[in-house]
Amino acid sequence: MALLNYEDFFTERANRVKSSVIRELLRLGSQPGIISLGGGMPDPALFPVKLFKECMDMVLEEIPHISLQYGETVGYKPLREELVKISEKEGIKGVDADNILITSGSQQGIDFMSKMLIDKGDTVITEAPTYLSAVQSFDTFMAKFETIPVDDHGADIDILEQKLKMLKEKGIKPKFFYTVPTFQNPAGVSMSLERRKKLIQLAIENDLIIIEDNPYGDLRFTGENLPSLKALDTEDRVIYLRTFSKILAPGIRLGWIVAAKEVISKINLMKQSTDLCSPAITQAATAEYLKRDYLWPHLEVIKKSYAHKAEVMRKAIQDYFPSEIKTNTPEGGMFIWAVAPEKVDATAMFREAVDKGVAYILGSAFYPDGSGHHTMRLNYTMQTPENIEEGIRRLGILLKEKV
Amino acid sequence: MALLNYEDFFTERANRVKSSVIRELLRLGSQPGIISLGGGMPDPALFPVKLFKECMDMVLEEIPHISLQYGETVGYKPLREELVKISEKEGIKGVDADNILITSGSQQGIDFMSKMLIDKGDTVITEAPTYLSAVQSFDTFMAKFETIPVDDHGADIDILEQKLKMLKEKGIKPKFFYTVPTFQNPAGVSMSLERRKKLIQLAIENDLIIIEDNPYGDLRFTGENLPSLKALDTEDRVIYLRTFSKILAPGIRLGWIVAAKEVISKINLMKQSTDLCSPAITQAATAEYLKRDYLWPHLEVIKKSYAHKAEVMRKAIQDYFPSEIKTNTPEGGMFIWAVAPEKVDATAMFREAVDKGVAYILGSAFYPDGSGHHTMRLNYTMQTPENIEEGIRRLGILLKEKV
Repeated sequence: MALLNYEDFFTERANRVKSSVIRELLRLGSQPGIISLGGGMPDPALFPVKLFKECMDMVLEEIPHISLQYGETVGYKPLREELVKISEKEGIKGVDADNILITSGSQQGIDFMSKMLIDKGDTVITEAPTYLSAVQSFDTFMAKFETIPVDDHGADIDILEQKLKMLKEKGIKPKFFYTVPTFQNPAGVSMSLERRKKLIQLAIENDLIIIEDNPYGDLRFTGENLPSLKALDTEDRVIYLRTFSKILAPGIRLGWIVAAKEVISKINLMKQSTDLCSPAITQAATAEYLKRDYLWPHLEVIKKSYAHKAEVMRKAIQDYFPSEIKTNTPEGGMFIWAVAPEKVDATAMFREAVDKGVAYILGSAFYPDGSGHHTMRLNYTMQTPENIEEGIRRLGILLKEKV
Repeated sequence: MALLNYEDFFTERANRVKSSVIRELLRLGSQPGIISLGGGMPDPALFPVKLFKECMDMVLEEIPHISLQYGETVGYKPLREELVKISEKEGIKGVDADNILITSGSQQGIDFMSKMLIDKGDTVITEAPTYLSAVQSFDTFMAKFETIPVDDHGADIDILEQKLKMLKEKGIKPKFFYTVPTFQNPAGVSMSLERRKKLIQLAIENDLIIIEDNPYGDLRFTGENLPSLKALDTEDRVIYLRTFSKILAPGIRLGWIVAAKEVISKINLMKQSTDLCSPAITQAATAEYLKRDYLWPHLEVIKKSYAHKAEVMRKAIQDYFPSEIKTNTPEGGMFIWAVAPEKVDATAMFREAVDKGVAYILGSAFYPDGSGHHTMRLNYTMQTPENIEEGIRRLGILLKEKV
């Protein structure tokens, strides 16, 4: 037993991070025998093991003095150069290697946004629902939240406009608008082109920074490609967060940021005391993976599998869910978002679901204000098609009792 | 050109991190043709490439669903279990896997100390000189610094005692004492056993947290082993930061923290929004490396080489430096610390040194208050013995002009 009481020493920041009920429930849902539609992980059966190992072999055999050594804080130059090409392919103009910084997963990118932009009490705007661990990071740095609802066409930019006006009247200048515009987590929807353009215009008019988090954009299996906000950005207002977790593998812990050079310089300075540099070994292997042009062909394999699984889930929902449950038809990404009638309490229902051998993530986890108790996020990447159908069937039985 | 002025949006925190003169000089010193004694990197010729590749092959071939997937935030269990064994071997009692958290290098461990323990304006105590990037991290989180001088027997604990008394009288409760007690960076010295015991006693009497940073302790090539502060800790007052960077390779970006379970739990919660988890691929390979018992035999190879290089540097200093320059004789670690007479300005001399084809790190970089202008840190791990001798010879010529 410690005689010392660490609680007395913790910062206000540290005292805000508490063990969340959601993580406890997630643990409950990951017990053996339960079909979990809860996680947000890519299918490990689709990791490009052979191709990646080829690259790992090469960097350990031929450049161990680089791959095992400290690397530049901003990131391995050949990797950043490959990412310039990816940016150009995506339609982002005027980007060179100095516009790119390598992060230890895009979660670290989010953490840098907090460190760089949130002083205690600063206002940030997010979508509602939105990515849980982004809210957690902003909250740790003691932001105040304003939220914008999401409908079938993404965040409602008209409401954002009203919100910005209202904040201006109150003399509040928000630090940024954080958005996942493509295959949104958790809602699965994408912001329409019209709204994207309007958002960029609004940002210009209101001197607003946009943080665009795009982990799923490359996982489109149907419908037309939409330009990223970064590709529409004419004033360097978009800080663009990207990751290899969903298109290569999360275990390498690599993401990247595309932004104005002054932003990259500032993050570079902060990264020195945060973790010095991201892993040289996975950076070098990933640079090689991109150089050999392994990314895009293998991505087709992943998309084909996810498209199938998404369709299996969609059909199972049609067959087994009561018609009162509203869901989207995913054009890409990893999730279907289910909205039940208000009277359904997805939190209260969770333990019953686990008893019936199926788990999901409580939608309320994704609302900064804790609302959304009647919503659920359903993941289709981690389970087999058979399990997806069976999981949805089990959940459907329960939902029919509740609506 | 960005029309947006990011400066207006940066946090107080972000505005504190400025590009440092030292890093610019370090860049200057790393030009081709210059013998740099400036860096703090391990010798890449000593990376255990073949052994580590064996382990990497294994984890990619046999457990890709683990090594390429997201891992537990607290760290890969088999790795933490190996680190329990290392802790026990080191004489640390009562440690199990829940006392250990894996970090993305020990720099991340330092960053967590800042996040967890430093509210704006909090007082922290460090050695002077001390590790540059720790000061940078504490400063980013807006700590106030109190410093304790370091002599041949490590930090002067009597002065720490006086300092604690003085702070108490002022009603200031310091958040922690940060120390690198073994082969200190940059001073190269180790805290005596007597002082270690006294420090633990002082911590108990003054309700003080000790952060023990020990990246070099395993690199002892002569003299008697000293117990870590953590091994002497009876009240869970020591938070112990460790790293694989100097004993295996920095490119894998892995460190670990040994601490009270309540501290590990809190850091675990903060790590979720910081980077979710450290690289699963290097964690899995490193667990395998430890399991196969590759660490200790290979460490002998590293120590033998560094012992030789340290001796070459010591002898060259004896031969070429003017006698007014005081240096320590290293028993381990990576550095010799040189203290010139006050009138020598190592900052002003740096460009002349580069012109003569040799570089070092300005000692002033390691003083939180910017003093120590007449000191230099000399690294002996990165250069060949021939270059070490030649570098010291060149520096000696210059120093003889200055003293």
